[in-house]
Amino acid sequence: MSIVVVGSVALDSVETPHGKVQNALGGSATYFSVSASFFTNDVKLVAVIGEDFPNEHIEFLKSRGIDLEGLEQVKGKTFRWAGRYGANLSGAETLATELNVFESFSPKIPDSYKSAEYVFLANINPELQLDVLRQMKNAKLIVCDTMNLWIAERKEKLLETIKHVDILIINDAEARQLTGEQKVDMAARKILEYGPSRVVVKKGEHGAITLTDKTYFSSPAYPLKRVLDPTGAGDTFAGGFMGYLASTDDVSEQNIRKAIVYGTVMASFNVEDFSLNRQRILTREEIESRFSEIKAITEF
Amino acid sequence: MSIVVVGSVALDSVETPHGKVQNALGGSATYFSVSASFFTNDVKLVAVIGEDFPNEHIEFLKSRGIDLEGLEQVKGKTFRWAGRYGANLSGAETLATELNVFESFSPKIPDSYKSAEYVFLANINPELQLDVLRQMKNAKLIVCDTMNLWIAERKEKLLETIKHVDILIINDAEARQLTGEQKVDMAARKILEYGPSRVVVKKGEHGAITLTDKTYFSSPAYPLKRVLDPTGAGDTFAGGFMGYLASTDDVSEQNIRKAIVYGTVMASFNVEDFSLNRQRILTREEIESRFSEIKAITEF
Repeated sequence: MSIVVVGSVALDSVETPHGKVQNALGGSATYFSVSASFFTNDVKLVAVIGEDFPNEHIEFLKSRGIDLEGLEQVKGKTFRWAGRYGANLSGAETLATELNVFESFSPKIPDSYKSAEYVFLANINPELQLDVLRQMKNAKLIVCDTMNLWIAERKEKLLETIKHVDILIINDAEARQLTGEQKVDMAARKILEYGPSRVVVKKGEHGAITLTDKTYFSSPAYPLKRVLDPTGAGDTFAGGFMGYLASTDDVSEQNIRKAIVYGTVMASFNVEDFSLNRQRILTREEIESRFSEIKAITEF
Repeated sequence: MSIVVVGSVALDSVETPHGKVQNALGGSATYFSVSASFFTNDVKLVAVIGEDFPNEHIEFLKSRGIDLEGLEQVKGKTFRWAGRYGANLSGAETLATELNVFESFSPKIPDSYKSAEYVFLANINPELQLDVLRQMKNAKLIVCDTMNLWIAERKEKLLETIKHVDILIINDAEARQLTGEQKVDMAARKILEYGPSRVVVKKGEHGAITLTDKTYFSSPAYPLKRVLDPTGAGDTFAGGFMGYLASTDDVSEQNIRKAIVYGTVMASFNVEDFSLNRQRILTREEIESRFSEIKAITEF
């Protein structure tokens, strides 16, 4: 089944205690689609880049089999983000955000994308997310991400978006911020009242949970010995999650749980190197091996 | 197999957003031994109380089959603690600590206790923990707890104790404080270098992990809908953990994992009411039912 992802393609400058990169490939739609591409060859990307976007990155995305018909290249510079992580590698300090061509981004869904069954609304302005929803009438499963900025500044529009999606994927800090509930479980239950039939809360080193009205699943994080750069972990998680779902076209509770674990596995690889460098050499065998390891560390 | 627990028996005054109790039964050894008593009828308690200690509490402990030969009653008042929990119910603010008879507590292990195979050193001054270790030469498994106070003020003695125990049970904040590592996994690995062959880290709403050099296990917390009072959750966890181990006399990795889940289950009941009130009406069937529920929410 096809997945359409709408989000950002960016050039990131990131500094962590373990090193730094400048103008490296980044962006929510990039991390998502590369991650999903390990499960399905039918990922369709919608984003905007400027004239300065290096061709080698386009070639890399193509090499992953990602459909770039919806990747608009316009006059101006590509969206750039610069951030720094402290010693505990949780939560980046934003040093600079240059929206550039992303400022006037208005997602145009190519006709060839409109029959896609799976839609991922990566972290963009909720008004744009709503606009995409109006263009994707045939979707079978709509999954949405967001961030602290929109919760603080566009909460009403965000709640309107959330009302119309099937699954909200959110991290623990955002879940608290959105609901005012301090316990993650309580925050997750409150989100279900906002409209989605399922919520997935990413808890970093504590793993992830997913809830519906009737079900609850808890996955640990993969026990990493070293984290180089957490940038993109959330979108990589979502890419593994939806990539696996679309490849199996099965949204049963049992399969959703497997998808959560695949998302966890993909995120664990992503943080082992800067930008998408780990994904460039990642194999399906490595993915399956970590999936089995997570099974082994939860069995009793 | 027998378990000896050395710790405090106290009278607690606790305030949470859901209510309050005054001079209610509390103390680390109390929570531990009542919890363990659901698995084995061979729990031997070592602690001190004053003349004011209500006889009804002694009757309650006896009704749970706990051996009180090591419960010394001396002149003076019982150890009292008063604390208040804020809206998110994580971490109490201590309002008052009256050590009273606990101030000069010097654990005397009755001869009839000295052949016990399982020993739990609840959270007391590490010098006293070392003293107990010297008196319990035949133990098969020594498990130790501690708290932020001793990490801050008696770190050297604490490290000496930790060196001589088999398992350290600690919460996530204490693990960070003890090791200086911000990530729980890293902190846990560092603790293994201090001497114990296994570490258990309790992570509150995020469950618990246990590591050895070669193994890793992650258990979720039981998804509670309401928490009334977290006091004693850690000792109740330890009591379920060791109670199950002693009752099966099996410290294999597989059985340790089950013990962690039983600890999790016992802690989940404890926080549903003030003091040990939930334990007063708890049944083994309810325990088994939550054990199965945790299995169900982790399977994929």
